Amino acid sequence: MNFTLDDALPVLRRTPDVVRVLLWDIPDCWAEATEGPDTWSPFDIVGHLIHGERTDWMVRTEILLTYGETRPFTPFDRFAQFEASRGKTLQELLDTFAGLRAANLIRLESLGLTAEDLERRGRHPELGPCTLGQLLATWVAHDLSHIAQIARVMGRQYTAAVGPWRVYLPMLGTPPP
Amino acid sequence: MNFTLDDALPVLRRTPDVVRVLLWDIPDCWAEATEGPDTWSPFDIVGHLIHGERTDWMVRTEILLTYGETRPFTPFDRFAQFEASRGKTLQELLDTFAGLRAANLIRLESLGLTAEDLERRGRHPELGPCTLGQLLATWVAHDLSHIAQIARVMGRQYTAAVGPWRVYLPMLGTPPP
Repeated sequence: MNFTLDDALPVLRRTPDVVRVLLWDIPDCWAEATEGPDTWSPFDIVGHLIHGERTDWMVRTEILLTYGETRPFTPFDRFAQFEASRGKTLQELLDTFAGLRAANLIRLESLGLTAEDLERRGRHPELGPCTLGQLLATWVAHDLSHIAQIARVMGRQYTAAVGPWRVYLPMLGTPPP
Repeated sequence: MNFTLDDALPVLRRTPDVVRVLLWDIPDCWAEATEGPDTWSPFDIVGHLIHGERTDWMVRTEILLTYGETRPFTPFDRFAQFEASRGKTLQELLDTFAGLRAANLIRLESLGLTAEDLERRGRHPELGPCTLGQLLATWVAHDLSHIAQIARVMGRQYTAAVGPWRVYLPMLGTPPP
C-alpha cells in the first residue's frame, strides 16, 4: 500500500483511544506484565509512545523540512521512558499521550503537505537517507506494532493457563518439546 | 499468571470497544487488507470473533458444566465468517460482536462460578480433556491474539512504505536478502 496522509491520519488519530480502551483501569497484573527480563510492560510501552511524540515524529518532520539531508535526526532514546514514567500512574501516561498526539496532528495538518513534499529527503543518523513519506509511514506502523505488542504481552500471561489450547494460539509461542 | 475471573472479565469486557475504536469508520484499504492469499482481513477477523460468541465460549462452558467429559464440544468452524459476514458492513459486524459479547458476559456472570468450578473438566474434540479455567483463559488469550492480528495486518500494509525503517519494526518481518 502506498503511503497517503488520507489513509494514515485516521490511524494516527485513533491510537490514543485504542491504547486507552485497552488499558484504562485494567488490573495491575496486566499493566505491569512483561515477557521476561528486559522486555516491556504495557505501562512501559505507553511511556515509549509518549517519548516518540516528544522527540521523534514531528520533531524529525520539522528537521527534514528545514534541513533536508544536511542535518541528521537526533538519535531516539529507546529507554527514556524508564526514567520519565517513574512515579506516574498509567492513567496519567494515557492522558499525556493523547494530549501530545492531538497537538502533533494539529502541527502535521497545519503543514499542508503535498504528495511532492512526501518525497522530500532527510537523513536518519543510522539508516541514512529517507523520505518524509517513509518517516510518516513509520509513525503509523510503529503505532500498530506497539498496539500488537501490548495485546501480545497481555495474552502471553495466559500461556500456561490455556492448557492444551496453546497449540491453537501461535502468539503464545511454540510449547517446549 | 493463574487464571481468575477477576482478572479475565475486565479484558473480555473491553475487547468489543478495542476492536470498535481500531476499526470504526476506518478507510476500506485498512479494513479489507490481508497478509496475502488465504489470510484474514480485519473485516474477516471481526466475523470470526462473532462466530466465537455464537458457537464457542459460552456454548462450550455450558456443555462442560452439563456433561463434563462425557460429551465433547462441537468442533468450531474457523471459516464460518466468510459466509456469515457476506453483504454486511464492518459497522454492523462491530455492533453484532458487541451485543453478543455483552450477552455472553451476563450469562457467564450469572453462573456464579467458584474457584472449584474452574477445575471442572470437559472434553475438546481434538485436544482432549480440559478444564473450565483453561477454556475461559483461552477466551481471553484468543481476544488478545486477534487484536494483535488486526494491528499486525494493518501495520504490514506499510512494509514497503516505511523504507529503511523496516529493520526497526520486527512485526513487518525480515527483509528479503
